[in-house]
Amino acid sequence: MRQGIALVISAPSGAGKTTLIRRLAAEFPGLGYSVSCTTRAPREGEVDGRDYIFLSRQAFEERRAAGDFAEWAEVHGNLYGTPLAPVREMLAQGRDILFDIDVQGAAQLKLNLEGTCFIFILPPSMTELERRLRLRGQDDEAAIERRLANARRELCEAPWYDALVVNDDLDAAYDRLRAAYVAATLAPARNPRLVGDLLATP
Amino acid sequence: MRQGIALVISAPSGAGKTTLIRRLAAEFPGLGYSVSCTTRAPREGEVDGRDYIFLSRQAFEERRAAGDFAEWAEVHGNLYGTPLAPVREMLAQGRDILFDIDVQGAAQLKLNLEGTCFIFILPPSMTELERRLRLRGQDDEAAIERRLANARRELCEAPWYDALVVNDDLDAAYDRLRAAYVAATLAPARNPRLVGDLLATP
Repeated sequence: MRQGIALVISAPSGAGKTTLIRRLAAEFPGLGYSVSCTTRAPREGEVDGRDYIFLSRQAFEERRAAGDFAEWAEVHGNLYGTPLAPVREMLAQGRDILFDIDVQGAAQLKLNLEGTCFIFILPPSMTELERRLRLRGQDDEAAIERRLANARRELCEAPWYDALVVNDDLDAAYDRLRAAYVAATLAPARNPRLVGDLLATP
Repeated sequence: MRQGIALVISAPSGAGKTTLIRRLAAEFPGLGYSVSCTTRAPREGEVDGRDYIFLSRQAFEERRAAGDFAEWAEVHGNLYGTPLAPVREMLAQGRDILFDIDVQGAAQLKLNLEGTCFIFILPPSMTELERRLRLRGQDDEAAIERRLANARRELCEAPWYDALVVNDDLDAAYDRLRAAYVAATLAPARNPRLVGDLLATP
């Protein structure tokens, strides 16, 4: 049986990551998500254990100190973390897991979860990234400048990822993203008994 | 500019390699072939420098001693070799090159040509491989037994390849082969200036 793949997808804001991930999830419904822990309060309709595992700050910090998280971050005063044990269990069962996380979270996974496949989605140019951010119309000038500065910092991390997917054209970019995922399923390290079983059985 | 990819595809006889390679070459016409050197006599219609570089045995052995070949083999008393210099030149120009070679040749390329992408095509089972060999109707019983014994030996080398493509269904296998090739084009090591250029230009 094939080992599951932890698939990390990162991108600067405006590169088109959300659209590409939706398409991948639609084509590969078996691709699971890990449920994160958070210290923020549940929003209306959110279910504990399905949307998030809601923890007190003390409980979160205790689990973090115990090394329970594959990666964690503080965002707007709230803590978020990916619990390692359920991820390892899903992977051992052969389930693939998608992680839609930023470069800081990805860097922690790189250290804590061996065999992870890292995919970075890039804009074709900074001009085009800026154009897309303005087109969305959700940010003021200062926010756009901040996002562009963040994008420059994040792009510097792209070279340690396994695959660089330039989103110049949505269909072409999706073909590349899909290929990076499918190719990851073909690695001998993720199919440790394939050849042996083939030779052992008639 | 992206660096060219040396793409090695190996498979035991009967796994369906030729059909899959034809499809890949049809979809990616930019995928080049390297012209091999050989000591065998030209056949009718073969052009020196296009089909093969025809060499005397002495000339071949001198070039082999000089380390000119990325891989070489003796088949039915004739020597065949892949000259390294034109391969490196094509790769430096960003051209991808397909190598349709056996595991012995692939093992030599593994040592002599860094960055090569190795893809192994496997039958779904030994029974199915035997069925396909019989279906072709080109071998007698002894030849089929020989091919199956060779296949078992070759399959033991599959785990050091980069991608294992099981040819259970032709369309599914082609999708995997194609993904392995496309994913290889996305590796940061083959796109050394991608991020720098993106950040340097507007």
